[in-house]
Amino acid sequence: MLLSEFKLNDNEPIYKQISNELKRMIEEGMLVEGSKLPSTRELSNILGVSRNSCVHAYELLEDEEYIQITKNKGAFVSHRFKKHDLRWRIGWEDKVSSFGKMAVKLDIIKSEMPTQKGMISFKSIAPDEKLFNLEQIRRDFLNSISVDGEKLFNYGYAKGYKPLIDYLKSYMQNKGVNLSDKDILITNGFTEGFDIVLSALTSAGDRVICENPTHNTAIKLMMLHSLELIGVNFKNGVMDTEQLKHELTDNTIKLIYLTPSYHNPTGTVMSANKRKEVYELCRTSKVPIIEDGFNEELLYSSSHVSSIAALAGEDNSVVYIGSFSKILFPGIRIGWIAADKKLIDVLESIKRSRNIHNSVLDQAFLYEYLRSGNFEIYLKKVRKYYKDKYMFAVNCAQKYIPGCKIYGEGGLHIFLELERIDARMLLDESIKRGVDFMPGDVFYIDKSSKNTLRLGFSRVGLKDIEKGFRIIGECIEKLQK
Amino acid sequence: MLLSEFKLNDNEPIYKQISNELKRMIEEGMLVEGSKLPSTRELSNILGVSRNSCVHAYELLEDEEYIQITKNKGAFVSHRFKKHDLRWRIGWEDKVSSFGKMAVKLDIIKSEMPTQKGMISFKSIAPDEKLFNLEQIRRDFLNSISVDGEKLFNYGYAKGYKPLIDYLKSYMQNKGVNLSDKDILITNGFTEGFDIVLSALTSAGDRVICENPTHNTAIKLMMLHSLELIGVNFKNGVMDTEQLKHELTDNTIKLIYLTPSYHNPTGTVMSANKRKEVYELCRTSKVPIIEDGFNEELLYSSSHVSSIAALAGEDNSVVYIGSFSKILFPGIRIGWIAADKKLIDVLESIKRSRNIHNSVLDQAFLYEYLRSGNFEIYLKKVRKYYKDKYMFAVNCAQKYIPGCKIYGEGGLHIFLELERIDARMLLDESIKRGVDFMPGDVFYIDKSSKNTLRLGFSRVGLKDIEKGFRIIGECIEKLQK
Repeated sequence: MLLSEFKLNDNEPIYKQISNELKRMIEEGMLVEGSKLPSTRELSNILGVSRNSCVHAYELLEDEEYIQITKNKGAFVSHRFKKHDLRWRIGWEDKVSSFGKMAVKLDIIKSEMPTQKGMISFKSIAPDEKLFNLEQIRRDFLNSISVDGEKLFNYGYAKGYKPLIDYLKSYMQNKGVNLSDKDILITNGFTEGFDIVLSALTSAGDRVICENPTHNTAIKLMMLHSLELIGVNFKNGVMDTEQLKHELTDNTIKLIYLTPSYHNPTGTVMSANKRKEVYELCRTSKVPIIEDGFNEELLYSSSHVSSIAALAGEDNSVVYIGSFSKILFPGIRIGWIAADKKLIDVLESIKRSRNIHNSVLDQAFLYEYLRSGNFEIYLKKVRKYYKDKYMFAVNCAQKYIPGCKIYGEGGLHIFLELERIDARMLLDESIKRGVDFMPGDVFYIDKSSKNTLRLGFSRVGLKDIEKGFRIIGECIEKLQK
Repeated sequence: MLLSEFKLNDNEPIYKQISNELKRMIEEGMLVEGSKLPSTRELSNILGVSRNSCVHAYELLEDEEYIQITKNKGAFVSHRFKKHDLRWRIGWEDKVSSFGKMAVKLDIIKSEMPTQKGMISFKSIAPDEKLFNLEQIRRDFLNSISVDGEKLFNYGYAKGYKPLIDYLKSYMQNKGVNLSDKDILITNGFTEGFDIVLSALTSAGDRVICENPTHNTAIKLMMLHSLELIGVNFKNGVMDTEQLKHELTDNTIKLIYLTPSYHNPTGTVMSANKRKEVYELCRTSKVPIIEDGFNEELLYSSSHVSSIAALAGEDNSVVYIGSFSKILFPGIRIGWIAADKKLIDVLESIKRSRNIHNSVLDQAFLYEYLRSGNFEIYLKKVRKYYKDKYMFAVNCAQKYIPGCKIYGEGGLHIFLELERIDARMLLDESIKRGVDFMPGDVFYIDKSSKNTLRLGFSRVGLKDIEKGFRIIGECIEKLQK
């Protein structure tokens, strides 16, 4: 019964009727302990009685310890009324689906040691937020509000904010991607994009090819979709296309997932020749390609190489998943998928079913940041900044960590292959000395590699890079004894 | 091959070597048609040669129509070089998984007629964005940037932005919810919250109970999870608890999904007595409850009734999914799940696997909007505004649409049950006369109801409400003849 449904009679004083009704609701647990009652002003409105009667009723309830009145806070139901003698406890662990259990098991944040404060951590490959220009951000945000006003805060479209989509279309066309009969869907970063693509194209048990090692979030998602992963190995930082050719002879392969630029974790860039070779192999076998555009934007610092989506020309064979958020604003979670129109139509429906659409505010802000040219200014700055840092990190690795192979051609991390040293044992040692990194095994589909590690340097200062690498080198020395 | 890998020799002029190499890359499709070349300044840096050699090389390439140079835009690969005679066309329709097909089929936006410009549309139950106060929004945004700075734009936590979580905890405690051994996860609105909960707790084929009719997005999600839906019917706008009791005797029921406040689509509020009765029935059968807190915030306008999560007290049996975004800022997509700690731990891993976390910027902004008291001010304003509109809509319905039952006790919509009129036929008629609404069948798990419709009035002006309802009434009259 709602308070508003409460019928007053003429036989009893009104304050008495109100307090009796509230008592009953409290005793029967309909007004629960700790909950706030309406103010006497609100209550008098709801019931259509004088405020005085309500004040009087509340005083009576307080005297009888049904409620507690705290000045400036209001009236709250007392804690003495318990509803049940026995609590109903659900053992949620037993209720969790096999999917839920797998999501926990594959969540490396829950299995890895958390980085302690004060440690030098090479775990992250997030951008250095000090490079973000708050003044530009403020201005671009205020501009986007001026343009669209309140609309930014109401429902938008599942496909995304139109001006941003249009911007990304010309952005991709400038990079040589043929977009005829193609379209774009905005997603919550690469992660959601890849999840949606897998939902649209695969079913449990399907076989897919990926690089091995590869992005651990991608491995997690493919496993959560219960796919059978076929890993193509790297030789000296380069994908083994002989093996790829062999794997592609299996005509049940659903798709192939590739990260051609600053590959995570090896940091290597697939050469234009290799891209073409890989594309032609997939073309011959008719296996669609999911291209992860990971950190492609950093490429232009030292080279110029087309994405596989560009090499595909008029073919509709590549599903390109882009994201600025690896180098810019990961906090606002914006990525995109560029693919065949008919496929985007399906992906759009899945996106809508998952979370309706991305934040309109964030999309409008990002659009303004791109449109205003601030993105270009930022890119120039960070390309130089990360390149210098990369050079420094490579020099430090050569100096302090001898006897290892160093992979990586730029980007935000390097990858080491050690000789006869278990990276997990090395991690234990170096954590003791205050240095943290990502053991390479998490990037292998079978966790097979024991002697590799990824060192992200984007958010570590030069002094700490030097100190941290020196400590890692000393730990290796110790383990070699 | 990357440009940076290009080795120069001493036998030929440098400009010639450069242009030959670029020609080869263009001819072999590694530099694709339409793509932009690096500027001559960039190229001279990459290759370590004079800028003049690069300018010369580009001129030669332009003469031979390999590239086109547009002033102030740059050099682009010409369109005359096609790579393949035959395009590789993938028939994506045939590649789509059964899940993807279902997502399209259940996407009512794709099957319903889109609302034409100039029409009076009662389809939407989105808030009226004119009620948002842009000045306050601007201020709260700038404040949140001042507090956290660049951090808002870098990675955050899967569980959510800590100050917002803490705020929501005390917000729920003030509403009488006992949060001991419970926790909160931030999600992209109700939709993502419900999807994550279903992923964690259900597997294909599981049986779940829901109200019938109910929120069509919830029906879609339960179907996409391949659940078997058992609908409990409404009698005169009230859930049939006799039927519920009967359905709960089936001990394979996984969970029950309920929307007790301003139920979508009927607009009715479940009374406190009914809430308690439903809770006790679930308690006896040990069936966990997913409570959709839909528009609960509007409740205090006319009544005071505890959420089922509050009635549960110390029990850990209710998974509460909250969202302000039905009345406030749907565009930024923020909702939350309050549930048992151990369950939240699982939901957090699923959230991380789907899209890492919600936009930190939006969470920090919303926190500031709540903290500053602007939310309370807004709520007071909109409760009155929507209540007045609701009264007006009910009056118009009574006046212009005779012979129908009107359901709804406030909120943003009313629900009509017609006598012997097919709502789809009525929709066809009224669309012809420029009036659009949501046919009720989309809210029924078996689409069984033919004679109901939902009329959202939140974004329709008073004049148009009157005009639109009058037209609907006239269309009914026409159909009755």
